[in-house]
Amino acid sequence: MDAKVLVVMGSDSDLPVMKAAADFLRKMEIPYRVHISSAHRAPEKTAKLAGEAEARGVEVIIAAAGGAAHLPGVIAAMTVLPVIGVPIKSDALSGMDALYSIAQMPAGIPVATVALNGAMNAAILAAQIIGLHDGALREKLCAYKAGLALQVEAKDQRLQELGVDAYLQK
Amino acid sequence: MDAKVLVVMGSDSDLPVMKAAADFLRKMEIPYRVHISSAHRAPEKTAKLAGEAEARGVEVIIAAAGGAAHLPGVIAAMTVLPVIGVPIKSDALSGMDALYSIAQMPAGIPVATVALNGAMNAAILAAQIIGLHDGALREKLCAYKAGLALQVEAKDQRLQELGVDAYLQK
Amino acid sequence: MDAKVLVVMGSDSDLPVMKAAADFLRKMEIPYRVHISSAHRAPEKTAKLAGEAEARGVEVIIAAAGGAAHLPGVIAAMTVLPVIGVPIKSDALSGMDALYSIAQMPAGIPVATVALNGAMNAAILAAQIIGLHDGALREKLCAYKAGLALQVEAKDQRLQELGVDAYLQK
Amino acid sequence: MDAKVLVVMGSDSDLPVMKAAADFLRKMEIPYRVHISSAHRAPEKTAKLAGEAEARGVEVIIAAAGGAAHLPGVIAAMTVLPVIGVPIKSDALSGMDALYSIAQMPAGIPVATVALNGAMNAAILAAQIIGLHDGALREKLCAYKAGLALQVEAKDQRLQELGVDAYLQK
Amino acid sequence: MDAKVLVVMGSDSDLPVMKAAADFLRKMEIPYRVHISSAHRAPEKTAKLAGEAEARGVEVIIAAAGGAAHLPGVIAAMTVLPVIGVPIKSDALSGMDALYSIAQMPAGIPVATVALNGAMNAAILAAQIIGLHDGALREKLCAYKAGLALQVEAKDQRLQELGVDAYLQK
Amino acid sequence: MDAKVLVVMGSDSDLPVMKAAADFLRKMEIPYRVHISSAHRAPEKTAKLAGEAEARGVEVIIAAAGGAAHLPGVIAAMTVLPVIGVPIKSDALSGMDALYSIAQMPAGIPVATVALNGAMNAAILAAQIIGLHDGALREKLCAYKAGLALQVEAKDQRLQELGVDAYLQK
Amino acid sequence: MDAKVLVVMGSDSDLPVMKAAADFLRKMEIPYRVHISSAHRAPEKTAKLAGEAEARGVEVIIAAAGGAAHLPGVIAAMTVLPVIGVPIKSDALSGMDALYSIAQMPAGIPVATVALNGAMNAAILAAQIIGLHDGALREKLCAYKAGLALQVEAKDQRLQELGVDAYLQK
Amino acid sequence: MDAKVLVVMGSDSDLPVMKAAADFLRKMEIPYRVHISSAHRAPEKTAKLAGEAEARGVEVIIAAAGGAAHLPGVIAAMTVLPVIGVPIKSDALSGMDALYSIAQMPAGIPVATVALNGAMNAAILAAQIIGLHDGALREKLCAYKAGLALQVEAKDQRLQELGVDAYLQK
Repeated sequence: MDAKVLVVMGSDSDLPVMKAAADFLRKMEIPYRVHISSAHRAPEKTAKLAGEAEARGVEVIIAAAGGAAHLPGVIAAMTVLPVIGVPIKSDALSGMDALYSIAQMPAGIPVATVALNGAMNAAILAAQIIGLHDGALREKLCAYKAGLALQVEAKDQRLQELGVDAYLQK
Repeated sequence: MDAKVLVVMGSDSDLPVMKAAADFLRKMEIPYRVHISSAHRAPEKTAKLAGEAEARGVEVIIAAAGGAAHLPGVIAAMTVLPVIGVPIKSDALSGMDALYSIAQMPAGIPVATVALNGAMNAAILAAQIIGLHDGALREKLCAYKAGLALQVEAKDQRLQELGVDAYLQK
Repeated sequence: MDAKVLVVMGSDSDLPVMKAAADFLRKMEIPYRVHISSAHRAPEKTAKLAGEAEARGVEVIIAAAGGAAHLPGVIAAMTVLPVIGVPIKSDALSGMDALYSIAQMPAGIPVATVALNGAMNAAILAAQIIGLHDGALREKLCAYKAGLALQVEAKDQRLQELGVDAYLQK
Repeated sequence: MDAKVLVVMGSDSDLPVMKAAADFLRKMEIPYRVHISSAHRAPEKTAKLAGEAEARGVEVIIAAAGGAAHLPGVIAAMTVLPVIGVPIKSDALSGMDALYSIAQMPAGIPVATVALNGAMNAAILAAQIIGLHDGALREKLCAYKAGLALQVEAKDQRLQELGVDAYLQK
Repeated sequence: MDAKVLVVMGSDSDLPVMKAAADFLRKMEIPYRVHISSAHRAPEKTAKLAGEAEARGVEVIIAAAGGAAHLPGVIAAMTVLPVIGVPIKSDALSGMDALYSIAQMPAGIPVATVALNGAMNAAILAAQIIGLHDGALREKLCAYKAGLALQVEAKDQRLQELGVDAYLQK
Repeated sequence: MDAKVLVVMGSDSDLPVMKAAADFLRKMEIPYRVHISSAHRAPEKTAKLAGEAEARGVEVIIAAAGGAAHLPGVIAAMTVLPVIGVPIKSDALSGMDALYSIAQMPAGIPVATVALNGAMNAAILAAQIIGLHDGALREKLCAYKAGLALQVEAKDQRLQELGVDAYLQK
Repeated sequence: MDAKVLVVMGSDSDLPVMKAAADFLRKMEIPYRVHISSAHRAPEKTAKLAGEAEARGVEVIIAAAGGAAHLPGVIAAMTVLPVIGVPIKSDALSGMDALYSIAQMPAGIPVATVALNGAMNAAILAAQIIGLHDGALREKLCAYKAGLALQVEAKDQRLQELGVDAYLQK
Repeated sequence: MDAKVLVVMGSDSDLPVMKAAADFLRKMEIPYRVHISSAHRAPEKTAKLAGEAEARGVEVIIAAAGGAAHLPGVIAAMTVLPVIGVPIKSDALSGMDALYSIAQMPAGIPVATVALNGAMNAAILAAQIIGLHDGALREKLCAYKAGLALQVEAKDQRLQELGVDAYLQK
């Protein structure tokens, strides 16, 4: 089956962060492809990936980049598919550079920005979008969301049982 | 016809900015509702709006807030619909407060953040999402996008004809 | 005896920081409860904790969160008890995100913000508030405050005796 | 009747902002005094105000300052009463200077920081603290909080009736 | 004669700032062209301008943009000509967004960033680059630089004659 | 009598801010000279001013600049006289650029940085330094400092008499 | 053969970062010299390096510094050669100090700023400038640029073959 | 002999940084005392140190603090001696909090701010101030300054002899 989500990142150094997106998509059984491309070093490859996406059945594009972080915006310029941008935190500027470069897109060409290194949230957002017309997926998302609350509850129960000190020593 | 996009803002002082979202949705003929609610001053109203949205046919929620700007995140906590957050720039902190509060959501609950005061882009993003399963809308978006390029071209033509000084005096 | 201070944090990863609050409250013999809840992943649990607090005898709520850090504000929206917010510093944005999200609350719903990772100060502030109508506690606080000055004095004495180099080698 | 809330600000240029605190306290019928003092230009006056407060029946101190904004911390150093700090936004540094100087207090001496120019929230927080042992005040606060939700509801109703364009033209 | 400097800006709202670049190039008698194009709204036009520049005799490209400000980087990706980026200050984020987006380019694709709104410096830098193999231009630059020092000297002389108060009243 | 304080600023656009320094020095009867010079546009003039200062009897140099704001550091590199730097706030970056450029000098070459636009404080600091070996000046400084406290006291008295509302209407 | 690129850095602690510039210049067979000098600790040496550069055949100067980072600007003040500034990230202020000090140069004296620690990009930019009148070098740059795209392609091919998990384990 | 420089720091955790100030003063044979005191935890001790300094022969006070960093300003409020402030970088906010709190003092009460962790520069500045009326010290400072240039020269010589690669391997 063809990929519904295209995950592109500017460098393979982003892959340890972006793995969380792939993992979530797999868990939700959403077909996806992961590519390395660069808005600056490989502009033609990037244009090709973005330009062909819709015709190949892609519904959502997730693009990740650090520093000047133009990749999500450059891809958004070439498609009417929703593009989700993941700013990757590097050493410099506490991550402000990537966050601003992705969020501050000009009127006309939006990028759906998530948190710094927010790969998993990018995947969840992609699932929410696809889930709008995929009832089974939407149910999985509801179950996932319910699971989040249960995890919190379980941790809190454990904290009530153990107390702060014992909880921290586990 | 029922609203497909729910636009919520934390205060009526956000309305002059958010009008651009309503205008774009109207232009795209996407039915929408606009509400004022506040994560902090009207938490129950906010929970009701978010909780009922899906059942009432809403597909995308756009939420706008300034300062601590919790509204988009609070709504996202209560629905699996995609939530788009618009940080509203106030006087303090150059807008960093609203941008960070909306973008830096924890793993599990994404908000699709657009630029500071990026109301129109929020609406375009909503249209892109809905357009995934609405061919007519997708065509309108393609036309809109093509129009953006034409507008740039027209301005540039005019600049070539007039030159910098005359262009600025128009 | 029922808890007078309710300590809530958004994740158990905040617990190593927040332990200092629990330790101070215990030292002051102020009964407290510590819970993990999340404004986004467990909104109902959070609402329940906040909504029941006053009736259960809680006088002050301490809420800690990092990143978008909505927890203190979301709790403050649901109670007239004073809410103290502890921004937890994460890697990104030097902690600005959590600090701004907690401090920049809109008019009507205050959160008493302390320093990044300022768990102990949150507990002291809670004690100062409770101490307004608890003479014994106020005396303990005065003694604690006097002790702070004595500790500084003792360190300075030691520095006068040892000199800079020896003090650093101890 | 003696003042329960002492409002101190570093300069009379802060008064237009801080008036909102006085107005709220008056509305809640909480007796208060407002003083101008400066941590740096009038350290003795400041020490006197802070040192005598408790004996004169003050329960909460609200201190406001801009720029280096040491006033709240300097007062907190001299009392075990809860001190609420209001960072005043000046032109420089988008208000970061005042916010950081007030929020980032060292362990041992907390200041309850509110938003930049958050005078009204400082007064509400003071009322919440005093309301812990003043049932009538707590009822007023509950009514005030309920009123906030009603105001939001009323604005939203008006928006539903008028629509965005007419609402903005009112 | 064909243009040696290509000036591109993302929007005609940048033109009042960028006029200073055109003015300086004209003063130095360096042939130039000014275009409006947008990395996001008109990616093909942008690619065409960048791709054809070298063959048309352009030696230096000046690109200006605000907000996410991808234009200079996108152009730099498509040419080996030196690209000078001018970050345009908009309201939000004190201009940090445009500055970071232009300066923080990844290894491999440099953009020569000048100050926020530094249009004239972009033109001077272009002239310095072209002047490396154009002796007459280099002489003009030396004269311009000497003139800067003379202007400072003249202002200082005037200040010595008039004194501070009279100087300010002129 | 020869100038004891040399005030240098990078541009005559800094003069409206720096006038406060000249006014204070005149009030303290400290002889001073005010010059316009630029670290970048007039490096030789700057070097001459800095290099000759000590021999001409200057004891303290006050240097003001905005943006990259190299002037104070460049002067400090050429003298062992104490150099006080005044960062001038311009539009961009909320003044962070000038503040950081002046404060963050490398080990070996200090600049005594004052607040953004802190011209008067620069003059006071210069007077404090000169006052170390000028008893009459030190007395004037003590009187000035006492006057600051009296001004605060007078404003506070007036506030006690008038109340907040009347004080603001004056 | 005489150096065409002069690389100057403020401290030998910058050398590990700046090595990348030297390596790239060597690879491109552009003759270069590397010097340690300091705008503040060795202003005369700096002036000599900058002042003699043009006469000695230097075409481009690369200057690197951290903190107040005046070196590139100070050199630019003394030459009409293009000066490229490399802000070196130190611990404090996330690198904002060096970036702002180098980028925010006043009108008249540009510095071509690259990314924090962007030594290699500085060298590429220098090569692009020199390549304007050196056809062989320009060809090398085109080949280098093509190579960047090939590297991205190769990494992406490998990712397609291995998949995310295996790629990360290599 | 009595101390001419009083070094005060807010916590013994600042001592590893501040040791550099003591070392420089010793090297210059300027008598000094080093104390730990805290503006907030030991306000009376701080007031005593500041208030007695002048009478005890102190000429310059160096005060260091991190976070809210009120110590230098609080001391400056109590003396007409020049006060040099050293902002100590802690984990949070990249050091902005301490830098702003020390630099942004209100008109009337200056603090001479040096770089984050700039202990040595604080001592040099103190020496420059004292050197104004101590010819022997001024000569030592001139020698120290000359030495800085020689060190740079020596490092550069070594770099010329070894080349970049060998220099880095030493």
